[in-house]
Amino acid sequence: MSQHKVIYDTDPGVDDAMALVFQALHPDIELLGLTSVFGNATIGTTTRNARFLAGRFAPGVPVAQGAAAPLKRAAPEPLAWIHGDNGLGNIAIEADFEAPLDARPAHRFIIDTVRAHPGEVTLIAVGPLTNLALALADDPQIALLVKQVVIMGGAFGTDGVLGNVTPAAEANILGDPDAADIVLGAPWPVAIVGLDVTQRTIMSQDYLASLRDRGGAAGQFVWDVSRHYEAFHEQSAQLKGIYVHDSSAVAYVLAPHLYTTRSGPVRVLTDGIAVGQAIQKPSTMPVPAPDWDGRPECAVCLGVDVPGMLALYERTICGTL
Amino acid sequence: MSQHKVIYDTDPGVDDAMALVFQALHPDIELLGLTSVFGNATIGTTTRNARFLAGRFAPGVPVAQGAAAPLKRAAPEPLAWIHGDNGLGNIAIEADFEAPLDARPAHRFIIDTVRAHPGEVTLIAVGPLTNLALALADDPQIALLVKQVVIMGGAFGTDGVLGNVTPAAEANILGDPDAADIVLGAPWPVAIVGLDVTQRTIMSQDYLASLRDRGGAAGQFVWDVSRHYEAFHEQSAQLKGIYVHDSSAVAYVLAPHLYTTRSGPVRVLTDGIAVGQAIQKPSTMPVPAPDWDGRPECAVCLGVDVPGMLALYERTICGTL
Repeated sequence: MSQHKVIYDTDPGVDDAMALVFQALHPDIELLGLTSVFGNATIGTTTRNARFLAGRFAPGVPVAQGAAAPLKRAAPEPLAWIHGDNGLGNIAIEADFEAPLDARPAHRFIIDTVRAHPGEVTLIAVGPLTNLALALADDPQIALLVKQVVIMGGAFGTDGVLGNVTPAAEANILGDPDAADIVLGAPWPVAIVGLDVTQRTIMSQDYLASLRDRGGAAGQFVWDVSRHYEAFHEQSAQLKGIYVHDSSAVAYVLAPHLYTTRSGPVRVLTDGIAVGQAIQKPSTMPVPAPDWDGRPECAVCLGVDVPGMLALYERTICGTL
Repeated sequence: MSQHKVIYDTDPGVDDAMALVFQALHPDIELLGLTSVFGNATIGTTTRNARFLAGRFAPGVPVAQGAAAPLKRAAPEPLAWIHGDNGLGNIAIEADFEAPLDARPAHRFIIDTVRAHPGEVTLIAVGPLTNLALALADDPQIALLVKQVVIMGGAFGTDGVLGNVTPAAEANILGDPDAADIVLGAPWPVAIVGLDVTQRTIMSQDYLASLRDRGGAAGQFVWDVSRHYEAFHEQSAQLKGIYVHDSSAVAYVLAPHLYTTRSGPVRVLTDGIAVGQAIQKPSTMPVPAPDWDGRPECAVCLGVDVPGMLALYERTICGTL
C-alpha cells in the first residue's frame, strides 16, 4: 500500500518533469492528481506539459489547471532559456499521451481531494504557491486536514546563497511572494526544500547517462528532457550537471532522514529590493521578533545526504528499489 | 614603522574595548584617533568609555564624539544586558585615564584626518555607520582618499544566521541601516566582517583566563571587561565563551589572509520586516540585479582561520609577536 497520497502542484518545467517521473515510479507514492500553475512557463504551457507527463507516466491521474498569475502581480516571463521554449527542454511532446483535464480549477481540486482524504494528503508544491493560497482562501480548514506540505523554494544562505533570480530571492517564492507568505503562515505542517540542499545535490552528466542506459523508457526520458537544462547549467554556472530542485522535495517526502532541518516560523518579503526572500526565525533564537513570533513553525532543510538522495532517485528510475 | 594608520569608529561596548587593546598593542597599527558613536550604549556612555580606553591603553590618541542617533531614526535602547550598565561590563572606570575630547564632531575629525594622510588611513568601524555616512555627506571625495574601510557588521547566512537582533539583521547594520546603505555604496574599498566569521571565532573561558594570567595589565583588563559579556553569552547562547566580533575586524586589517572573502555589491534593507539586512550580490551571479548592479564591490568575509585569529590576538596581548 502506498504510504503517501500526493497532489503534485507543479509548473513543468524540466526538473518538475523529472520529479513527476520519480513520483510516478516510486511505489510509496500514490498520485491523486497534478495541479498546474504558471511559473517556469505560461499556465497554458505548464498545463499542457502536466497533461502530457501525467498521460505518459501516470495514466489515469487527473490534471487540474491552476493560476495564470500571482495573487497581486502580473505573470512573469516564461523561463525559456532554462526550460526551453516548450517548458520541457524542447523535446517532442506527443499529444496522444494527453491526460484529460479536470473541470475544476486547481485550488478547488485541492480542497475537494484533501476533504475526501482527511489527514492523508501530502501536497508537493514546486512552483509559485498561488494555488495553495487560493485553496486556503476558499477553505481555510483544509490546513488542518492536510498531512503535510512540502515546498521546493527559498534559500536560507548556508552556502552563501539567498536566491537564484535576484540576490535575495529564489524563483518559486518570488513567483508569488504574497501567496508564499500566506502558505507559510497557515497551520499545516510545512517543510521547505530550498537551494541550500537542492544546489548541493547535483546530477552529473555521467549520472544522467547511467539513468539513460539503465532506466528504460523513464531513464531515456530523463536524459532527453534534461539536455537543454544541462546546457543552461553549464553556461550559467559552469556546472557539468544539473541542480536537483524539484526531485529533492519528492525525496524529502520519501526519505526525510536524508535531510537535516531547522525549525522556526518563516516570513516572505512582499516588497522592497529583497522581495521574494524567505526568512526563518530559528526556534532557538532568543530574541523576540514580533513579525515572526506566533506564526507556525516550518521545517527548513539545511543539510542533505547527497549520495543517499541520488541513490534513491536512481533506484526508483531503474526499478532496483 | 606602522603599516596601518587607523581611525577606530566605535561604540564601546565590551568587544569594542577588547579590540581597542588589540590595536593599541599591535606594532603594525598606528591609532590616529577614536571616534565614538551611539550603539551598544548612549553616545554619552560610549564617548566616556572611548576616552577611558584611549587614556588607559593609547595615551595621546584623541577621541572625537560622534552621532547620538541614526540619520533618520530614534536612537536605540542601550544594550545593558549585553555590555553592562556602563557599557564596559560594569568594571570600574577610572576618570584619571580620561583622554581629552577633540573639539570636532567625529565626522569632521574623520574628514580632516583622512585629508591629512591621503591614501593612508584605514577606518575600522564597529558600530552603527552614522559617522562614516555623515563624513561622506560633508565631503564625498574622502571615499577616494581612504585606504580601506573595514566594517564589523551584517550576517550573510553561511551558518544559517542572518542576524542577531532580528531574524534578518545584525546589530551594527540595524543600528543605522540608512547610513550603512550609503557607506557600502561609496567608492572606497570596503571589507565586511560579519557574523559568518565573528560567531565562528570564539574565545573560551580558558583562553581568556590564559590572557589574564600571561597578558599583564592588558590581559587582566580583557578578562575583567569580559566577565559580564561572557555571562550574557552563556545565558543567551549556552556558550562557554564569547563571540569575537569587533576584534575580528582588527584581525582582518592585520592579517587578511586569515579570511576568505566574496566580492560583490552589498545593499542594506532600510524598511520592512527585514530592515537592517545586508545582502550581497556575488560578483559571480549571472543574472542582472538593477538594485545592486553598478554599486562598488565589497569584500564579504565568509570564512576564517579561527586558530590563526585567536593566536594573533593572544600573541598581541601577551607581547609574544
